[in-house]
Amino acid sequence: MSAPDVQIHAVATGKAAELVKAHSKPSPNGLIFYSGWFCPYVARVWIALEEKGVEYEYREINPYKKEESFLKINPKGLVPAIERKGFALYESLVLLEYLEEAFPDSAKIFPESAEERAISRMRIDMVSKKVIPAFFRTMISQTEEEQRQARKSFTEALKEFATYLSEEKPFVGGEKLDAVDISLAPWLSRLYIIEENRGGPITAEETSERFLRYVKDVTQRESVQNVFSDKAQYKQIYQRYLRNEAQSEAAKAVRAGRPIP
Amino acid sequence: MSAPDVQIHAVATGKAAELVKAHSKPSPNGLIFYSGWFCPYVARVWIALEEKGVEYEYREINPYKKEESFLKINPKGLVPAIERKGFALYESLVLLEYLEEAFPDSAKIFPESAEERAISRMRIDMVSKKVIPAFFRTMISQTEEEQRQARKSFTEALKEFATYLSEEKPFVGGEKLDAVDISLAPWLSRLYIIEENRGGPITAEETSERFLRYVKDVTQRESVQNVFSDKAQYKQIYQRYLRNEAQSEAAKAVRAGRPIP
Ligand SMILES: N[C@@H](CCC(=O)N[C@@H](CS)C(=O)NCC(=O)O)C(=O)O
Ligand SMILES: N[C@@H](CCC(=O)N[C@@H](CS)C(=O)NCC(=O)O)C(=O)O
Repeated sequence: MSAPDVQIHAVATGKAAELVKAHSKPSPNGLIFYSGWFCPYVARVWIALEEKGVEYEYREINPYKKEESFLKINPKGLVPAIERKGFALYESLVLLEYLEEAFPDSAKIFPESAEERAISRMRIDMVSKKVIPAFFRTMISQTEEEQRQARKSFTEALKEFATYLSEEKPFVGGEKLDAVDISLAPWLSRLYIIEENRGGPITAEETSERFLRYVKDVTQRESVQNVFSDKAQYKQIYQRYLRNEAQSEAAKAVRAGRPIP
Repeated sequence: MSAPDVQIHAVATGKAAELVKAHSKPSPNGLIFYSGWFCPYVARVWIALEEKGVEYEYREINPYKKEESFLKINPKGLVPAIERKGFALYESLVLLEYLEEAFPDSAKIFPESAEERAISRMRIDMVSKKVIPAFFRTMISQTEEEQRQARKSFTEALKEFATYLSEEKPFVGGEKLDAVDISLAPWLSRLYIIEENRGGPITAEETSERFLRYVKDVTQRESVQNVFSDKAQYKQIYQRYLRNEAQSEAAKAVRAGRPIP
């Protein structure tokens, strides 16, 4: 039997370890950020905290252990979660909206007008429904034909995302990352897993020149780099996906054709 | 071969037909509501418009036809959609947030504080990820064992929803429907389809006494009744689901184990 998912490396390393250290004390605004250093959903919230300049206390959780103390925060046992003002909040996309609303003086990650905010949410919905499930499916597919098909759905979804970009500004959010960029960024940091194991580099033919430039800009962004641990650290986790042995809720859901929790 | 999904009844009937008639003219606020009378996702937005007292022009669309003119509004070809200020917006849950933000003087369907709004969004997310997929699965399941299992997931999700209710107030939103209530309401209006075809009335043992009272209160609510057409009208559509012949995007997705679009 393969090693269970609980046996992941215990703490963040590399650049992320520096951030963790800088945020190890209770924060004046009372925000506690329950994180798993390896988790792309966590990375969304972490990048948002950094981009917005909102203070936080970092707490590392191994969500696969399902410890009682954390199940009191999130009964689903998933990271990310935020505790503040006696409320326990979770779901990465809900948390992006929460940070925007709870810290109105922080840097904005949603546009000004109600109409443009709706457009942002439609785009984030596309990322949730098309990009991420296809990413997981490409990782866990075992036969060459399945891998080819899954990669095709994945790159087609990325191509659709590319239509949100303009020639003038690097990001969907313009000169800085907005919630749409942030909703996708952690998977762009993990694109190399697909590239190294599922058919080579993502090409301009599959997506577009513009999109490849975007990948570079996003993955080199300071906030995105700073929440990333040493690359080697991710290997143990992703090997389990690549062999379709992962027992995370997401892996089980994708396998069973259920919605990702 | 079964009749294609495009051959649905053309227009709303019963109470809904009265509402349609009352909203057949351009609205002073410029809002155009693209609807399909039969659609539960549409009903969410329609109920919200009514609860909020926001004016709208009603336009009936048959989304299965994928007409060019409507694909310009929503490239996915799905109802509901809203056109306003030159923007074309869709996704029922995005539209609930939009109505709240674009019409700040209308009756509120989200709570005041950022923390409570986050809780509402977490609950709506539960409805999207657990209740609705299980509802569809219960409808399209063909063997008795599949039906029993799907109904069990469905009623367990409803039981989880019941934990959002208090003894003091009828609705999650208190004395009136809020976005959490509205996100589920259209499926409560359609509960009879499960009850009549998939194992009889939903019982208090499967959910709770409190939940059954909630179903009654929600389905008798004026706004919920008013967007409903004659019950017989729905039969043609749901028969296709019950025989697992529906060719809607949702049916194809549930069948293939993909996320519901
Ligand atoms: N929908 C959730 C997903 C969070 C999630 O799946 N987190 C993973 C780690 S990346 C987790 O906690 N997994 C624990 C498990 O699968 O048991 C979100 O957006 O926050
Ligand atoms: N996620 C969408 C779902 C909307 C949807 O599925 N609408 C159905 C009618 S109930 C539709 O337009 N179907 C057309 C099709 O499946 O081709 C929402 O929440 O608005």
